[in-house]
Amino acid sequence: MNYRRLGRSGLQVSELSIGSWVTYGSQIDRGLARESLAAARDAGVNFFDNAEGYAGGKSEEIMGEALKELAWPRVSYVVSTKFFWGLSEGPNQYHTLNRKYLLNAIDGSLKRMQLDYIDLVFCHRPDPNTPVEETVWAMSDMISRGKALYWGTSEWSADEIRAAWAIAERHHLHKPVMEQPQYNLFHRRRVEDEYRRLYEDIGLGLTTWSPLASGLLTGKYRDGVPADSRAQLKGYDWLRAALTDADKNAIVARLADLAAQLGCTVGQLAIAWILKNPHVSTVITGASHVAQIKENMLALDVAQKITPEIKAQIEAIVGDAYN
Amino acid sequence: MNYRRLGRSGLQVSELSIGSWVTYGSQIDRGLARESLAAARDAGVNFFDNAEGYAGGKSEEIMGEALKELAWPRVSYVVSTKFFWGLSEGPNQYHTLNRKYLLNAIDGSLKRMQLDYIDLVFCHRPDPNTPVEETVWAMSDMISRGKALYWGTSEWSADEIRAAWAIAERHHLHKPVMEQPQYNLFHRRRVEDEYRRLYEDIGLGLTTWSPLASGLLTGKYRDGVPADSRAQLKGYDWLRAALTDADKNAIVARLADLAAQLGCTVGQLAIAWILKNPHVSTVITGASHVAQIKENMLALDVAQKITPEIKAQIEAIVGDAYN
Amino acid sequence: MNYRRLGRSGLQVSELSIGSWVTYGSQIDRGLARESLAAARDAGVNFFDNAEGYAGGKSEEIMGEALKELAWPRVSYVVSTKFFWGLSEGPNQYHTLNRKYLLNAIDGSLKRMQLDYIDLVFCHRPDPNTPVEETVWAMSDMISRGKALYWGTSEWSADEIRAAWAIAERHHLHKPVMEQPQYNLFHRRRVEDEYRRLYEDIGLGLTTWSPLASGLLTGKYRDGVPADSRAQLKGYDWLRAALTDADKNAIVARLADLAAQLGCTVGQLAIAWILKNPHVSTVITGASHVAQIKENMLALDVAQKITPEIKAQIEAIVGDAYN
Amino acid sequence: MNYRRLGRSGLQVSELSIGSWVTYGSQIDRGLARESLAAARDAGVNFFDNAEGYAGGKSEEIMGEALKELAWPRVSYVVSTKFFWGLSEGPNQYHTLNRKYLLNAIDGSLKRMQLDYIDLVFCHRPDPNTPVEETVWAMSDMISRGKALYWGTSEWSADEIRAAWAIAERHHLHKPVMEQPQYNLFHRRRVEDEYRRLYEDIGLGLTTWSPLASGLLTGKYRDGVPADSRAQLKGYDWLRAALTDADKNAIVARLADLAAQLGCTVGQLAIAWILKNPHVSTVITGASHVAQIKENMLALDVAQKITPEIKAQIEAIVGDAYN
Repeated sequence: MNYRRLGRSGLQVSELSIGSWVTYGSQIDRGLARESLAAARDAGVNFFDNAEGYAGGKSEEIMGEALKELAWPRVSYVVSTKFFWGLSEGPNQYHTLNRKYLLNAIDGSLKRMQLDYIDLVFCHRPDPNTPVEETVWAMSDMISRGKALYWGTSEWSADEIRAAWAIAERHHLHKPVMEQPQYNLFHRRRVEDEYRRLYEDIGLGLTTWSPLASGLLTGKYRDGVPADSRAQLKGYDWLRAALTDADKNAIVARLADLAAQLGCTVGQLAIAWILKNPHVSTVITGASHVAQIKENMLALDVAQKITPEIKAQIEAIVGDAYN
Repeated sequence: MNYRRLGRSGLQVSELSIGSWVTYGSQIDRGLARESLAAARDAGVNFFDNAEGYAGGKSEEIMGEALKELAWPRVSYVVSTKFFWGLSEGPNQYHTLNRKYLLNAIDGSLKRMQLDYIDLVFCHRPDPNTPVEETVWAMSDMISRGKALYWGTSEWSADEIRAAWAIAERHHLHKPVMEQPQYNLFHRRRVEDEYRRLYEDIGLGLTTWSPLASGLLTGKYRDGVPADSRAQLKGYDWLRAALTDADKNAIVARLADLAAQLGCTVGQLAIAWILKNPHVSTVITGASHVAQIKENMLALDVAQKITPEIKAQIEAIVGDAYN
Repeated sequence: MNYRRLGRSGLQVSELSIGSWVTYGSQIDRGLARESLAAARDAGVNFFDNAEGYAGGKSEEIMGEALKELAWPRVSYVVSTKFFWGLSEGPNQYHTLNRKYLLNAIDGSLKRMQLDYIDLVFCHRPDPNTPVEETVWAMSDMISRGKALYWGTSEWSADEIRAAWAIAERHHLHKPVMEQPQYNLFHRRRVEDEYRRLYEDIGLGLTTWSPLASGLLTGKYRDGVPADSRAQLKGYDWLRAALTDADKNAIVARLADLAAQLGCTVGQLAIAWILKNPHVSTVITGASHVAQIKENMLALDVAQKITPEIKAQIEAIVGDAYN
Repeated sequence: MNYRRLGRSGLQVSELSIGSWVTYGSQIDRGLARESLAAARDAGVNFFDNAEGYAGGKSEEIMGEALKELAWPRVSYVVSTKFFWGLSEGPNQYHTLNRKYLLNAIDGSLKRMQLDYIDLVFCHRPDPNTPVEETVWAMSDMISRGKALYWGTSEWSADEIRAAWAIAERHHLHKPVMEQPQYNLFHRRRVEDEYRRLYEDIGLGLTTWSPLASGLLTGKYRDGVPADSRAQLKGYDWLRAALTDADKNAIVARLADLAAQLGCTVGQLAIAWILKNPHVSTVITGASHVAQIKENMLALDVAQKITPEIKAQIEAIVGDAYN
């Protein structure tokens, strides 16, 4: 495993990392979580992504319990959480980034995860109803009080990220250092275009999510929705339409042929393609089985095989069929 | 119940809220307080206003005890207190906003209310004998130390509010976000004229008090002072003259006729009229009975009926009979 | 008793206050201290001055023990200490204002005085071997950490005071608000001339010491050094020569005549004269007996009698016989 | 013993100090450490240098245990540690100055040394993979939180030191005050040339290491590597070549002749020569025996004998045979 700096920060994260979204609390329980984390660490993974809103807090509890049992030295791994979708309804509890919610939320996450501090805290979405300055103060205060080490955003516009950075610089607060955007072969414009100037100007790091476009890039939706897939889970109906798009599945089929030539799966090829982007600090991968983790890790080897020629072939296959 | 942002901050407060002034400790005991708070919360109220000086600290104690028994999640409600009238005589204990008093006062309020932090802390009046800079530092320090979330002022001049804001901006301290002014049909100039530029310039939020002009706008003083009214309470003699003003009571009579046409009380009409002012974040209403809380809440429906035409009629009735 | 603002700060201190220098630990024990403090408070005194170096720490211990027994509300009195003459020899322990010494010293004083915070902390003398910036940071840090409320200097030059203020302003630290200079009829140039511009520019407050010029202004040295006087105490030999100066004692004799006309002692006249200077926040008086405290307090009445004419007579008597 | 200010700071360190590098944990155990520290203190030494990476943390443990037994007043001695070479492998644990590592490291050192704070914390080497700004924030936060008093660097370039200083000045953070460079007769360019402007511009202090060039300047390598020398220790093979350089040992022989004329050893002469550089705050000397400490201390007397003429003779002997 190689490690990359989280943007211009000094923190080193493994190129591939593990996210608990969707899986923890719904498909994965405590025992499985411990096994998955152990398998990932054996492969060199040091970053484990989480959020308050995943499975209504259960994802944090399960990961926290597993980490406690594994008892690794605290300095040797990096854990995140994200705030925006709180655990209860109410004007200051959900869909907000105001001071009251955020300072309550970090204490809740620390308790659920049984940790003294969380490495990375993200503003899970922008909140148009809270001034950026209020959010920057609260995030920076978490760091000043020793409850978090670095803070960043997820799915914020380039303008919002820069606004947050500039406010922190002006008021001598801790600045945001990373963003967690969706990034995969079918979803690229924000990372490749919108954020372009931020990499150099403020040293933005990326922890990307959905490398397989919710499974579309595994090819398993080429013949409809399998019974045990994420798109069948309650509350994920919205995924079904996107996953069964005929044009995209046709592209996946052609990518699968190319992958076969390289001796890998289309999913590994899709992850390896992301690894070639130097602005990406780490690719967060999902994991409902230990086997899947091991399979995903093989993308590290595939990345070595993506020559400029192979990359050009991939681009030609995808064309402009992406957001 | 709708929720409004507290000025430009991200905190959401219910359009109507409950204040403990006058009532708690003198008319309302612990049991009644718990019932009132519960009734208000059922109606969607999430903000409960208080002050160190109300009933010599008893108002905080009663509300704190009631909140403890109700055991709502801390993130789900917003509590305030205010500092200026301390609980004991002495040059640094009363009528002051100096550092020594303020840092003592917050600890006292937290203890009396049995809370880890207070959401909103107000400077209850301006203090000409303490530099604004000293007060800004102490208020900001309360927030930095996690004892409060937002701070503001009550009955400060526009100039004083702006001075406080500018000092905080210059020294990178927490800025004041709200002001608690008196505001009702008979008391309007400060909110409508003096503060005019502050709404846009610094995003000032308002938590207004005395919506019924101490009861004058309920119409109950049209035939003198009733035996059980606030104006009969010990120490409130100063109210009596204002409440029995003949010209104002004549206006109240005409407003009562208009209210009758809308199928509501004159008090509900008066509260509804305040709700139409978009600069108001929340209207603090008093409550000596649970029934009164329910009655006040109906003003939310009345507000829907205040068309531009009705509003014009109200203005015509009041004329310039206001400060 | 009247109270005056400590310079432009919001803290109110009594016009006359009590200092423990010389007396506590050497002439006054715990029981006497408690009696003295109680007598002073009865007279309206709310400020009690102290220093780490007085009687090698014993002065703080005695005052702390007495305050504990008296059990007044903490917000009702103001206590000071001063740092420079540490309690032990060593390059970072004595005659220094460096960070290491200061942060050790405040913890020691809090322990000896059995207090959670000290109201006023002074840099007892300037330290040419520590940069002013280092001292400003350490003093400000005491306040940020809640261990002190206000900080200032003692016997610093105007230039040094302004340098400290400007560094604090530039780095957004807590600024010095007061200075403790010697000030009496025979020692005036610093207060009246050197500091002149500081009162308006930075709002400097003064807590003055030695109002009676170490006793010279009581007239008791007109016939030599009495057996029980301070000038006989071990380690105060340097005082003896100054106290027996013939010219000065002649002036004292003439002041005594004037005092007799006003129906007061020359000491009371000397203290009253200081009270007429509006830049003085409080006059620190010594106290080896309860009777002496009561006698000094009468200077408040004498001050009322010092008309411009009387003041002119005093100035004429003293002439330019002062530093 | 004389004391010198640590650069422009107010902290006073003894001209000669004791370092635990190489010796503690490998050659020196707890009992010997206590004896060495006591002997050094008797000679007036008040600064004891350490680092997390020395003997894998054991050096800190041994010194901490010895200090605890000696029970000197905390204010009377100065202890350092250094961060960069962490105690375990891993991307955020070793060869880094990122926020995660540093904030973990200080807590580890405090625990191993059984202290509430460490006087001096050094960034043991520059880290090209962490922005200077991130390191400055973390070091400054250690001081803000009361875990350290002053921070500095070791073996940083002049440009890196100035960058750190300027960032701290701009964001009102605690600035670096000292650097720990290698400095001896054979290693001079950085201290004498590269840092030249920093002494005046930012008041940089120096705590120099390797005064005897790892023993070369004792003359004991003139006939090869003795059996009990540092160059025989496991892991120090790299030293052997440098120590047996023929040209340098020839220079040492000539210096030894000069030393003999002055009645001292060549090692004492080499240390005394460093003491003549006014930019040096303290010369850190090693100590594997109590006798060696006593011998090194005699360099203080030798320094008095280094007249400009003697100094010129030394320079002539060394010529340009130095880095």
